[in-house]
Amino acid sequence: MNILALDTAGKTAAVAVLRDDTLLYETVSNTGLTHSETLLPMADAALKACGLTCADIGLYAVTAGPGSFTGLRIGLAAVKGMALPRQTPCAGVSTLAALAYGMAGAGTVVGALDARRGQVYWAGFDLETHERLTPDDAAPVEALEKFVSGCKKPLFFVGDGALLCYNRYSEVPGVLPCPQPLRVLRAAGVALAARQLWQDGRAVPPAALLPDYHRLSQAERDRLAREQALH
Amino acid sequence: MNILALDTAGKTAAVAVLRDDTLLYETVSNTGLTHSETLLPMADAALKACGLTCADIGLYAVTAGPGSFTGLRIGLAAVKGMALPRQTPCAGVSTLAALAYGMAGAGTVVGALDARRGQVYWAGFDLETHERLTPDDAAPVEALEKFVSGCKKPLFFVGDGALLCYNRYSEVPGVLPCPQPLRVLRAAGVALAARQLWQDGRAVPPAALLPDYHRLSQAERDRLAREQALH
Repeated sequence: MNILALDTAGKTAAVAVLRDDTLLYETVSNTGLTHSETLLPMADAALKACGLTCADIGLYAVTAGPGSFTGLRIGLAAVKGMALPRQTPCAGVSTLAALAYGMAGAGTVVGALDARRGQVYWAGFDLETHERLTPDDAAPVEALEKFVSGCKKPLFFVGDGALLCYNRYSEVPGVLPCPQPLRVLRAAGVALAARQLWQDGRAVPPAALLPDYHRLSQAERDRLAREQALH
Repeated sequence: MNILALDTAGKTAAVAVLRDDTLLYETVSNTGLTHSETLLPMADAALKACGLTCADIGLYAVTAGPGSFTGLRIGLAAVKGMALPRQTPCAGVSTLAALAYGMAGAGTVVGALDARRGQVYWAGFDLETHERLTPDDAAPVEALEKFVSGCKKPLFFVGDGALLCYNRYSEVPGVLPCPQPLRVLRAAGVALAARQLWQDGRAVPPAALLPDYHRLSQAERDRLAREQALH
């Protein structure tokens, strides 16, 4: 089966084509261009490089959240559009799980995304099995202390929130460095996380693919604050 | 500094642009097309995506061996051609070191390339520091036994020779799995290994960039065998 995997949850955009156990093609781009400019040309280039069209794709994979609200909508809308004509199955994966599935080895990996306001979206995973150790959560960086200090295995951080975590936890015993260029979300990880969902029978039709924002948008938070101030 | 990194040492082709500590762009392609068809368009696409030209590149990075003789010549010739006009510094990195520099975490990583005839090119590296533990070597898969069994830390294999190694060593205590799609050589690893050479003062002018074949070609082995048969 061919899996086309896309990610636009953060500042980077990424595309991969996974055929069974072979990574045919993968690109990650961090060029400052907007996802609406880069994503579809990247997907087109990936398919063309592999000699494939949308008709050859058996599963669409996309990061469904957490992440930038606009970014998530661009990725999900693109996948829905490509999957709709043939009702191709889709898998919306956790952005944090996709970060973890892009890494191998022993120990623990924490996927972390910068959620602004001193917060990170984060979750811990076992590196060897990619088993989830904590649920996806949005929290202040300080709130990871219990997990990081209590972790029995070596641990490192990936994702665009890794820097915030390293600034606070790099001196904790057992916390390993991860070179910044390797912290980037790989679309291979999106594809591998989606393959697991597919194997677990959790792929969905395109219409059922939904974002997972994890918290209210700024506009919704502002409205709630205004409403509460009125009461 | 902008580093343009290329790899054509094996079946995959890969290109990356690293700016200081930021991975701007990375592609790996395993589409069955020949490197002579894919490499320069991939490099062109990478530079264009980043809004760069060859004039903006401060260091060219390329896998200099071990690997396919033809593949190495394609990568080295491409880099020499791009670097020549401005005498841009070049770093020819070990393909096995580039494999290791593409991974992060704790333990040991063994870069392994299929050298045919039951042999692998291989070398071991510390994952945390990317410090080299053994020299690049071409050897029968069985010859890794001492290193694998004696390794005190968890160990996994990457590269297109990893499958040969897993077939023999997957049951050895401490040997971890690595999903096949993550065993592919990343051009980010080529760039990071080259940056280390640059920092160590070991970059060279384009004319001094040489392949490191590690063993005689099939034609040379055949000639030696014929000459020895005559004596």
